Amino acid sequence: MPLNSRTKGVIPIAPTPFHPDGRVDEYSLDRMTDFFLAAGIDGITILGQLGEAPKLDHQEAITIATRVIKRAAVPIIVGVSAPGVAAMRALTRDVMERGAAGVMIAPPNTLRTDDQIVAYYRNAAEAIGADVPFVLQDYPLLFSVVMTPDVVRRIVAENPSCVMLKHEDWPGLEKITTLRGFERNGSMRHISILTGNGGLFLDFEMDRGADGANTGYAFPEMLVDVVRLSAAGRRDEAHDLFDAHLPYLRYEQQQGPLGLAVRKYVLMRRGILASDAQRKPALR
Amino acid sequence: MPLNSRTKGVIPIAPTPFHPDGRVDEYSLDRMTDFFLAAGIDGITILGQLGEAPKLDHQEAITIATRVIKRAAVPIIVGVSAPGVAAMRALTRDVMERGAAGVMIAPPNTLRTDDQIVAYYRNAAEAIGADVPFVLQDYPLLFSVVMTPDVVRRIVAENPSCVMLKHEDWPGLEKITTLRGFERNGSMRHISILTGNGGLFLDFEMDRGADGANTGYAFPEMLVDVVRLSAAGRRDEAHDLFDAHLPYLRYEQQQGPLGLAVRKYVLMRRGILASDAQRKPALR
Amino acid sequence: MPLNSRTKGVIPIAPTPFHPDGRVDEYSLDRMTDFFLAAGIDGITILGQLGEAPKLDHQEAITIATRVIKRAAVPIIVGVSAPGVAAMRALTRDVMERGAAGVMIAPPNTLRTDDQIVAYYRNAAEAIGADVPFVLQDYPLLFSVVMTPDVVRRIVAENPSCVMLKHEDWPGLEKITTLRGFERNGSMRHISILTGNGGLFLDFEMDRGADGANTGYAFPEMLVDVVRLSAAGRRDEAHDLFDAHLPYLRYEQQQGPLGLAVRKYVLMRRGILASDAQRKPALR
Amino acid sequence: MPLNSRTKGVIPIAPTPFHPDGRVDEYSLDRMTDFFLAAGIDGITILGQLGEAPKLDHQEAITIATRVIKRAAVPIIVGVSAPGVAAMRALTRDVMERGAAGVMIAPPNTLRTDDQIVAYYRNAAEAIGADVPFVLQDYPLLFSVVMTPDVVRRIVAENPSCVMLKHEDWPGLEKITTLRGFERNGSMRHISILTGNGGLFLDFEMDRGADGANTGYAFPEMLVDVVRLSAAGRRDEAHDLFDAHLPYLRYEQQQGPLGLAVRKYVLMRRGILASDAQRKPALR
Repeated sequence: MPLNSRTKGVIPIAPTPFHPDGRVDEYSLDRMTDFFLAAGIDGITILGQLGEAPKLDHQEAITIATRVIKRAAVPIIVGVSAPGVAAMRALTRDVMERGAAGVMIAPPNTLRTDDQIVAYYRNAAEAIGADVPFVLQDYPLLFSVVMTPDVVRRIVAENPSCVMLKHEDWPGLEKITTLRGFERNGSMRHISILTGNGGLFLDFEMDRGADGANTGYAFPEMLVDVVRLSAAGRRDEAHDLFDAHLPYLRYEQQQGPLGLAVRKYVLMRRGILASDAQRKPALR
Repeated sequence: MPLNSRTKGVIPIAPTPFHPDGRVDEYSLDRMTDFFLAAGIDGITILGQLGEAPKLDHQEAITIATRVIKRAAVPIIVGVSAPGVAAMRALTRDVMERGAAGVMIAPPNTLRTDDQIVAYYRNAAEAIGADVPFVLQDYPLLFSVVMTPDVVRRIVAENPSCVMLKHEDWPGLEKITTLRGFERNGSMRHISILTGNGGLFLDFEMDRGADGANTGYAFPEMLVDVVRLSAAGRRDEAHDLFDAHLPYLRYEQQQGPLGLAVRKYVLMRRGILASDAQRKPALR
Repeated sequence: MPLNSRTKGVIPIAPTPFHPDGRVDEYSLDRMTDFFLAAGIDGITILGQLGEAPKLDHQEAITIATRVIKRAAVPIIVGVSAPGVAAMRALTRDVMERGAAGVMIAPPNTLRTDDQIVAYYRNAAEAIGADVPFVLQDYPLLFSVVMTPDVVRRIVAENPSCVMLKHEDWPGLEKITTLRGFERNGSMRHISILTGNGGLFLDFEMDRGADGANTGYAFPEMLVDVVRLSAAGRRDEAHDLFDAHLPYLRYEQQQGPLGLAVRKYVLMRRGILASDAQRKPALR
Repeated sequence: MPLNSRTKGVIPIAPTPFHPDGRVDEYSLDRMTDFFLAAGIDGITILGQLGEAPKLDHQEAITIATRVIKRAAVPIIVGVSAPGVAAMRALTRDVMERGAAGVMIAPPNTLRTDDQIVAYYRNAAEAIGADVPFVLQDYPLLFSVVMTPDVVRRIVAENPSCVMLKHEDWPGLEKITTLRGFERNGSMRHISILTGNGGLFLDFEMDRGADGANTGYAFPEMLVDVVRLSAAGRRDEAHDLFDAHLPYLRYEQQQGPLGLAVRKYVLMRRGILASDAQRKPALR
């Protein structure tokens, strides 16, 4: 079930469950996978920034990916971002062999000019292999790399394997509109756009042409309902449901770009994770 | 009515009204001043980033400040941030002579180390004069300068004229708690803390010890009510009122760090500004 | 004698002489002007970063510029960089009226994408007036703004008043070659390219097509000779003279991007400045 | 032969030889190792930024390290910098088991405040194990992380296994003097200081108290002679030898922070590397 440019819906970003002593908690991982499936999600993204990926060694990453892929009959996207292409290629190969649907690649925060960003993704796409669908992660607040709509278009044009944008610019509504405009005027092929920012602007983003959400909000069932109501044209109901969640949704957002602590805490309180432990060193 | 470390309440950040042809619109400026006063605010901050200050020449800045100071019998804080101390000193002198209550100083985004930040404020405080109360503006998202609580404490210790923190870190609740803890353990004298971020976290910030809001949200009357209810210990009512505003408040926030366009538009629709024009070049 | 795209030679970047108490030292300013003229220079750049411009108020800047313009019958370029266009426009107007040959504009270090850089110069050029020749300052090490050759070409294409590039990228030899290639293939009109970096790579830069030097090295007479020998095709002599200066030239470079302290000290020891004082606050 | 705080001399930073098709060239690696030994060096640093480490997978890195360690009876320092501690720990363990003398750790360029930098090294030192000597790499120009002398002192105080500073600040002479002053006044224990910047300031750095050079300059025999002459108090001879190399040394420096292309080219021309190929993607 490879990722493709028509993918829609809600794909939560999963944290990685740890025991208090730092070992990966595989039972909680299973429970979380089941929880996501029960919420009606359309895929799961693992081993992203929220997943504490940089604290996992290669073998641990493979073990986690394999376990989620086997358990969940939905597309699994694996974060493979790394400063060097060697590590990115090795992890990509190993998880694709085990059934991953695609990978997500964030830009290293040393990139500055448009050409540097485009060249980076050209190299990355070549390194992982032209047959591996990948998600372009655009999150200037966290990575300090600013991609204009034109840069996104260039990356999409150069790399047929770029099938999805994880959109997390801020402010970003205009960017969605511009990219969808590129598609309408024929200057860019269609890609899937899923949005982040904790879902804080999801209602507006759906109105602008987003295909769904790709975020770590701890109540994915609400995201699923908002996306379905929006897709069904029931905008008022979507907005009402969304507004009811806003006070809490905003609290998660207060925790900053990653908000990992509060998300793990909520998942623990909901009985899904056995512990809200982060592996040392904790994210700043 | 000089600014001091006991200042509390809501001090809106005012945009600068322009005519569509780029001239300053003094009638709208008056109307906006009256609107703020009617909302029950406790002061007004003018000529900040939201006020398009870098697009104003020295004489225009003086004219605007003088007009607002004369019209409003509340403390007026003037943004005087500039890369060089010469321009900062000249503007400070001219607005203090005309009755400003104090000035606000943002850090230039070239500062990196703790010592560089502390030295910058030492020089700035000396340049404007030890008798001029100033607001320390902490907004890492916009300025890329990260101040730890310890750096704030050092700046407060070195500069008796630093009387207020405009707190706009994100996530930032822990910072308020840490600074109030410094005060309780006697390692830092008390300063006023007013918060920004469009008011998005105001309810939680008041719970942590903030003294009020210093932000450009286009409905300051709501901020006034939330701050008063919080100060009166009526936390549930404060939270309820706040939650009712959240959907819109969040929309403003979507506009990014400055959100100037939507704020001018709303003030125009409310009949306060004659135009929502920004002077060229528009803020990015 | 307005600056134009055919300007060649050595245009030193002048520091601003101060008395130890911080006042501008006008006698030293005159002596320095005469020293530059005696060295055979082709113009002088004043009020740049090296000139401690941010520490001067508007009136001081005008006074200094007027004094140098009156005394020196060579083109005087005035640094007018400022975060806001209002201050830039005011200073430009005042120094052009007094006979300046053109102005130099550095990018604010908040610019990130190609489009942001191009838009900034479009706005700046419009603000100062289409009739004012300006120098595009490209110094990524100091300003953290990275301009690709294509971005330079776009700025040159959009702004007929952009007549010179102050080239200070590092490594930068390829950039000179690329820009001269654009001229040869007809995709960019000719502009003057003068180089910085303390002259450390001047010999190679002349070989690549630079028109001269625009830097603060404290022995401009050497730069003048190297540029003349190079222009006369006497490359070996140019290289030999250059190599003899290298040990000292490199020492100046050790002082970092600005190297102001050592340059003022040398000019004082050479009897040109009465004092090597920097106005407070000293540059970092 | 573990690295310790008394290590002195010249420790070249080695590039990684590749065949034109991208495979590691083990014969050139051997030849380069022998070349360094014949030049009289005191150790070799491998798998740093100059060594294209991010393009190597874990097994390749181990293979290269093992081969150099077996061949050279001098201390081998291995670059283990990685954004996550998991990869850093795994590589450290594997190369220390195979006889490495210590590791070098660069700061990730997301670090901003003093406390963030200190915390990062605390976590890194704990992750690799308290018994592994490590080199603190201070290179603000490349990593955008600015460490004050006080931050270096804090890292040295917290981590007994920090035994060496690779000093590559710019300007940096004052930093060496300050750190040696800390040692004299008893506020910091002694550590080895080796310097980088392509050796461009080596003569001055030795005068300030540096213990030698740790850089990729393609003529390490010159660095060895300068360090020995300086250590023997023969300063004039050291300076003369150094000055004779300056024109070329400066050319290498022109190539920018890494200068890898010119260094590989020179080593190829000297008959040491079979090819000057860089593995794709080439360093920016």
